[in-house]
Amino acid sequence: MLNVGILGATGYAGEELVRLLANHKEVKIKKIVSKAYEGKKYSHSYRNFVGLNDYICEGLNWNTITKGIDLLFSALPYGVLMENLTEDMMRDIKIIDIGVDYRFMNKDEYSKFYGKEHKSMELTEQFVYGLSEWNIEKIKKAKYLANPGCYATAMQLALLPLIKENIIGEDIIVDGKCGLSGGGRTLTLGTHFVEGNESIKAYKINNHPHSQEVKKGVEFFLDKKIKLTFTPHIIPMQRGMLITVYTELIKDIEYDNVKEIYEKYYRDKQFIQILDKGIYVESKWVKNSNLCHINFEINKENNKLIIIAAIDNLIKGAAGQAIQNMNIMNGYDESTGLSYVPTCI
Amino acid sequence: MLNVGILGATGYAGEELVRLLANHKEVKIKKIVSKAYEGKKYSHSYRNFVGLNDYICEGLNWNTITKGIDLLFSALPYGVLMENLTEDMMRDIKIIDIGVDYRFMNKDEYSKFYGKEHKSMELTEQFVYGLSEWNIEKIKKAKYLANPGCYATAMQLALLPLIKENIIGEDIIVDGKCGLSGGGRTLTLGTHFVEGNESIKAYKINNHPHSQEVKKGVEFFLDKKIKLTFTPHIIPMQRGMLITVYTELIKDIEYDNVKEIYEKYYRDKQFIQILDKGIYVESKWVKNSNLCHINFEINKENNKLIIIAAIDNLIKGAAGQAIQNMNIMNGYDESTGLSYVPTCI
Amino acid sequence: MLNVGILGATGYAGEELVRLLANHKEVKIKKIVSKAYEGKKYSHSYRNFVGLNDYICEGLNWNTITKGIDLLFSALPYGVLMENLTEDMMRDIKIIDIGVDYRFMNKDEYSKFYGKEHKSMELTEQFVYGLSEWNIEKIKKAKYLANPGCYATAMQLALLPLIKENIIGEDIIVDGKCGLSGGGRTLTLGTHFVEGNESIKAYKINNHPHSQEVKKGVEFFLDKKIKLTFTPHIIPMQRGMLITVYTELIKDIEYDNVKEIYEKYYRDKQFIQILDKGIYVESKWVKNSNLCHINFEINKENNKLIIIAAIDNLIKGAAGQAIQNMNIMNGYDESTGLSYVPTCI
Amino acid sequence: MLNVGILGATGYAGEELVRLLANHKEVKIKKIVSKAYEGKKYSHSYRNFVGLNDYICEGLNWNTITKGIDLLFSALPYGVLMENLTEDMMRDIKIIDIGVDYRFMNKDEYSKFYGKEHKSMELTEQFVYGLSEWNIEKIKKAKYLANPGCYATAMQLALLPLIKENIIGEDIIVDGKCGLSGGGRTLTLGTHFVEGNESIKAYKINNHPHSQEVKKGVEFFLDKKIKLTFTPHIIPMQRGMLITVYTELIKDIEYDNVKEIYEKYYRDKQFIQILDKGIYVESKWVKNSNLCHINFEINKENNKLIIIAAIDNLIKGAAGQAIQNMNIMNGYDESTGLSYVPTCI
Repeated sequence: MLNVGILGATGYAGEELVRLLANHKEVKIKKIVSKAYEGKKYSHSYRNFVGLNDYICEGLNWNTITKGIDLLFSALPYGVLMENLTEDMMRDIKIIDIGVDYRFMNKDEYSKFYGKEHKSMELTEQFVYGLSEWNIEKIKKAKYLANPGCYATAMQLALLPLIKENIIGEDIIVDGKCGLSGGGRTLTLGTHFVEGNESIKAYKINNHPHSQEVKKGVEFFLDKKIKLTFTPHIIPMQRGMLITVYTELIKDIEYDNVKEIYEKYYRDKQFIQILDKGIYVESKWVKNSNLCHINFEINKENNKLIIIAAIDNLIKGAAGQAIQNMNIMNGYDESTGLSYVPTCI
Repeated sequence: MLNVGILGATGYAGEELVRLLANHKEVKIKKIVSKAYEGKKYSHSYRNFVGLNDYICEGLNWNTITKGIDLLFSALPYGVLMENLTEDMMRDIKIIDIGVDYRFMNKDEYSKFYGKEHKSMELTEQFVYGLSEWNIEKIKKAKYLANPGCYATAMQLALLPLIKENIIGEDIIVDGKCGLSGGGRTLTLGTHFVEGNESIKAYKINNHPHSQEVKKGVEFFLDKKIKLTFTPHIIPMQRGMLITVYTELIKDIEYDNVKEIYEKYYRDKQFIQILDKGIYVESKWVKNSNLCHINFEINKENNKLIIIAAIDNLIKGAAGQAIQNMNIMNGYDESTGLSYVPTCI
Repeated sequence: MLNVGILGATGYAGEELVRLLANHKEVKIKKIVSKAYEGKKYSHSYRNFVGLNDYICEGLNWNTITKGIDLLFSALPYGVLMENLTEDMMRDIKIIDIGVDYRFMNKDEYSKFYGKEHKSMELTEQFVYGLSEWNIEKIKKAKYLANPGCYATAMQLALLPLIKENIIGEDIIVDGKCGLSGGGRTLTLGTHFVEGNESIKAYKINNHPHSQEVKKGVEFFLDKKIKLTFTPHIIPMQRGMLITVYTELIKDIEYDNVKEIYEKYYRDKQFIQILDKGIYVESKWVKNSNLCHINFEINKENNKLIIIAAIDNLIKGAAGQAIQNMNIMNGYDESTGLSYVPTCI
Repeated sequence: MLNVGILGATGYAGEELVRLLANHKEVKIKKIVSKAYEGKKYSHSYRNFVGLNDYICEGLNWNTITKGIDLLFSALPYGVLMENLTEDMMRDIKIIDIGVDYRFMNKDEYSKFYGKEHKSMELTEQFVYGLSEWNIEKIKKAKYLANPGCYATAMQLALLPLIKENIIGEDIIVDGKCGLSGGGRTLTLGTHFVEGNESIKAYKINNHPHSQEVKKGVEFFLDKKIKLTFTPHIIPMQRGMLITVYTELIKDIEYDNVKEIYEKYYRDKQFIQILDKGIYVESKWVKNSNLCHINFEINKENNKLIIIAAIDNLIKGAAGQAIQNMNIMNGYDESTGLSYVPTCI
């Protein structure tokens, strides 16, 4: 059994991690760390755990955090891990960071997006970028892993095959939509039920860090540059994410050719499903699962290829992909603990 | 492996059955029957199955329906099974009916609630009533099982210990609230998103068949009679059910005494959780699970015991309890395929 | 024109007051008081006012608060007004308090429900209780008015005719359901969209102050006592309230007799509608209006009269009834500024 | 008083029309036509009208439809009006068509989008296109008016100033999001609460008729051509529409220059509000109103101008703009019956 610890377990991604790991046959949750719930049952924070394998939360002590565990998941808000992580702590355990602190960025980019100086940027290069379907060989050997952002996951899964095969131009527009769990459990007026229900808004226009992450990802995986215009939106649902991608076709190409490209890269990837022509991608069909559904249409008149992709922002966009990466890092079957049919209703 | 067939698999309870059974280690789904989707993939009806263990739907042929299977689940609308089921069909298989046709009622009661004459009432006595926590010995030996209604499950789980221990009067009021999946997948104006969202209504006041089912259940299990006033409400959510039960205390009794009574009956029942004093029961904490949460308060001034219970109407209220019963009937561990942490978000 | 000021205008009831008064032909909003938005436009708090009759918020200064206005609406959280209101401030203006501080309670009751000592209890008797349909003569002459609570409004409108006519027993159960705006704009985990959506819970069982208010109201209006068991629930919608009332019939009475009683009291009350037999009360049909819909059923078997009533918790349950009372106090037509068809969608 | 009749009054746009006209001081509703509700009260279809100015629905008789009225609103599904309208019927009344039958299209285009042959295409040129803010002079003199589509309204309001001033390229991408009332009251699986809630999907990719309408509109108003790529999405809310528009800047231009352009065209248009820099457009802030909120951002790096606009799809996108046009056609103040503050909650 793999003994794991979880930092940030009372956020939404953290809870999904605990929930999914509780049913993972190779894993034993040994440590749940929470300042706010120190000494209390985990079910005081999430009552779905009442009477099940409940856990007692530990306080946060950076000195002892690696004791007794083989692997540490961190689902902390930005800035916390990078301020505390040390080479010393990293020596004896594996780390999967669901947060943003070790994802590709350099010091300037980090400061720009997060308004803080990165205190341990030198560790970044030890973290393998965990886009499971595109980096599996490096993930197999990884000791430290930076789990991709939710939007960054959906965007790269939708775009990388097309960019690699040179069928679309560098000017790419992504219109993103996500449910309110994407904003986390922190209390804000915008996430109050009365303010968030029955409404939609765009936010962080031109200024979302996942845009940066995708550009870096394209460079990393394909050694190419793109110009990415990304507008995320918040829509009144709890979970789920759908992106609508607008690209310029630079080859005279038909629907079936594009489909072949996707299948070339994803035929043997169990979590990626390319839907049949004409079928709408809907976020509910991947809810509570690690799946990604993709489909597309060509607009010949305007020479556009429009791609739609959906994931569950908390699963394939966070906790699920982290477990997928844990499986790969530890030689388990990639889908262990993740092979659920989406709940849909 | 137990080979099962499913009738009515394209309704909501049916889908949950297929979804949960797809991950059940002792079961193989051999047959999904659907008139509307005959010859088509099951994923045409529920796209969460795209690319997974998809199934080809068979047409409905009563003559061959038992071929090749050990157990048949029926999740058909009222009236269909009772018009077609025969002793002949029942010979070689087990049956679990999630529908209403073989639940306790006599001919007159059935006609009153469903407006149809029951065509095979004589078969009813062969069906064991599947309230798992209260009828396990009979269920173990059952070949045919009538799975309880969702409201009837929540009500009986909340009430039976109290009635059995003679601490409440016979005059019982239940105020029920359920999400719109309770009304099924049939299209009606009331279940249109625009008509159902941001609204609540009571319906079938004094006239809901689960009221009858509970009265019969109390007679069956405890040989007592109650006067039950039941008002169900539809609230704007997809799934989940909560009941608020108002009873008269007939003994001078304290909170802890009531708690002891519940624990006496449910201490070893893994799916029933009695919450700590002061903790609110919320339907989300049992979502997508076979759990039932119960809590209560005493109103000394008015001599009332108020009980709150929540279940997932599609799981413990339908597909989940059906699987629990299947497990019991077949000697599997009761929680096989059902031991998921509720999803809550 | 009546010059009005508004305290607590950035809460939900406050916003509805500003919104409705902005279209009231007899009223001019002279003063919007907000500590948090002092010197800022009101539209910074509620952007629906952008470009319309926007207002500049004033800071809170108790010394000058009555200057320049004829009538002050207060929609402050409990405890603020009672700590600051003085006879001196009351001299030159009328006051309508949407808050809870001057509604019937004595010192002990106030402390019990709000955990604070009431600092100006002696002023309470100067406040007329503003249940418009039942207290119109006193309201006409009122200078100071305590606007009823939302649940208290619905309950009294449903119950007073029946209690007055002696057809129901003193033992009354009310099961209440309200959208999340009922909890106000304060940020709590329970009102986070992700925690509040797709769930229902009961709260403050046996312990909601509106229960006390109704008992006092029954004494005040009818000089009778009732035993009230009240359980409020929060359901996933923004606004709207529905109550289900369970009473014991103490006369042998038919549906039409009850209907006549309701019509006797409400026939000429334009905001109260008794629906036709068999029509379900649904909260959406009174949304964004000052209306109250009522209907009922008799359960002969159990000797019960079940009443369902719906209001918009922010309108008839708060801002709308306050304006109705303002109209009555100032000799305007009772429905001025309130005669909108409910929005329903 | 203007005597009006309403065809298609039981659809959502029709209901909003009836609701808003019921409070319009210059209008008397003389005739509500409904096949399904012939002889019944309108409140049988929409119970928000119970006890208010209720109406008796007439059956549909094309021969007498113009009798007794000055102006006919038609909110019929596509294809019905064009099959029945005749020059004869048009002689004595004004007509405002909220439907799609007389909006710009030629026969081929109509057949392509609606799969039917247009039977009275020759009447189209008599219908003035009712984009109120851009066609007011023609609307003033109009006898017959084709009210714009909801998406077409939002898109043209956002785009026309920019195209006219030559600051954006012809290649335009619009990503649209709308609540489920946009799909009408017809029952479909996709609009069932359980299927529509907690999900988002794109639909009619490259194939939505409003895309055609906008291209024609740009030609009509500006005599220019654009290449429009439009993807509409359905999101889980009842009403509200937000569009995100991606355009190429063809001039070196700053934020303030764009703002000046918008103000040039909309400064004196009371229903169009250009928000301050940095303020997010959110659909709730225009809910239940005839307002349109617009804001934008420049992406210098990618040379993009991104515009966000929101309307209430049933008001400015349908019934509200129809009334605005009626006001203009009849010499009333443009905002009569429409000057409500948005409800927002």
